Order: sequence, then C-alpha cells, then structure tokens
Amino acid sequence: MGLRKVNVAEGFSQISDYWDPRVAGDINDMQVRFVKISGAFHWHHHETEDELFFVVQGRLRMHLRDGVIDLEPNEFLVVPHGTEHLPEALTEECHLILLEPGTTLNTGTVENERTVRMPGRLA
Amino acid sequence: MGLRKVNVAEGFSQISDYWDPRVAGDINDMQVRFVKISGAFHWHHHETEDELFFVVQGRLRMHLRDGVIDLEPNEFLVVPHGTEHLPEALTEECHLILLEPGTTLNTGTVENERTVRMPGRLA
Repeated sequence: MGLRKVNVAEGFSQISDYWDPRVAGDINDMQVRFVKISGAFHWHHHETEDELFFVVQGRLRMHLRDGVIDLEPNEFLVVPHGTEHLPEALTEECHLILLEPGTTLNTGTVENERTVRMPGRLA
Repeated sequence: MGLRKVNVAEGFSQISDYWDPRVAGDINDMQVRFVKISGAFHWHHHETEDELFFVVQGRLRMHLRDGVIDLEPNEFLVVPHGTEHLPEALTEECHLILLEPGTTLNTGTVENERTVRMPGRLA
C-alpha cells in the first residue's frame, strides 16, 4: 500500500540523543520532525521559515526577546520567521514535534556543533 | 508579545459541529486545522496538496483504494496528493488535527454541501 501511519510513542522510542531532530513525515515542502531536548539551546532565528513546536512530553519554555511562553503537553506555539527564540526544557527532558519547512536548519542563521545539516529519518 | 500558544483541548472545546475545520495556526503556506468528525466523508483527493491527519481523540479509519488504515490517538498518517481517500470516524466522534497547505479544499476536487471555502479560525 505504501502509506504507513506513525505512532508518536513508537517514534520517540527510536530516539536516544538530544537536539537531533528526526524526520517523521513530509507534507509537500514541510517536514514533521521529532526531537528530544534537554537543557537550553541558544538564541537563533530563521530567515524565512516559520516553526511550530508541539509538546508531547515534559514542559517547554520558549524564550523570546520580550518574554517567555511556557508550554505543557498538548500545547503548541508557532514562532514566525525572523523571531529570535531560545527553546529550553523545563523538565529533565522534553519531547517535541516540530513542523517546519524541510529547508529549516535547526540552528537557524548560526552554525555550530549543534547544527544538523541532514536530519535522519525515523525507521 | 503577539505570540500565543494553543492548547489542543481548549481549541476543540470551541468546536461543536462536524466536518467544519477551524484554523489553529499558520506555518508559512501551511495551516494547522482542528476538526471534529462523525460518520464517514466521501471519496476525494487533492491535486497538489499532501494532507496530514493526526488523531487527538477517538479512532479514525482512512479508506484508501487498496485497503484501510486505522488510527488511534497519537497516531498520524500523511495522505499524499493525488491519493483518493475517505476518512471515517470509528467512534461516535473523532477529533483530528489536520496539517495541509492553506489552499486545501476539504472536499478536494469535489464540491458539495460539505465544502468549506474559507475555514473559520479558532478564537
């Protein structure tokens, strides 16, 4: 049949490292990516790509230049392109579903040791 | 601040009718839409738009021309453009998050009494 559903828990069970997004699906030019995070990332923004953060497990604090937004499981936030942001796990780890154009570089306009050029795919 | 998170349960609490998608967020040209369904839709396809179905509550059967795929909560399926499909709630109602290009017409290439030309937005 070709089409295959994705079970969220099963997908996250394949991930054992942090800040390493895995592609879980493609919708036209957009990708669904699963990522586990721990601690804080760094300030960055994306020039043209909007980015959706959906919390599956744990709690997320999104730092913005004018405040923070805290997210619980089953809450999401869209960070528009051009908006500086810094995601931080408020729990030991936080499981996120990201939705963003396939061109989105995780570190935005910054490149460093956390940059993932070609995200792997879930099995 | 402008940015505002969306709580999934709160979003669905605003919806009391079936088959009437509401826009819950925009990511570039893509929209997140919440919809409650009951019973079966009809066969249709989208010429160019892929469509993601994420089950929040209830059970979904996606009929495809070569079989069916049943989805439980926290499972999703991407139906590629050009693929004929017919979604059916296997429970009295089923709550779905859809992810699709903003141009996507709910009834695909068919227009009928269920066609929603301009989906409303959640408050």
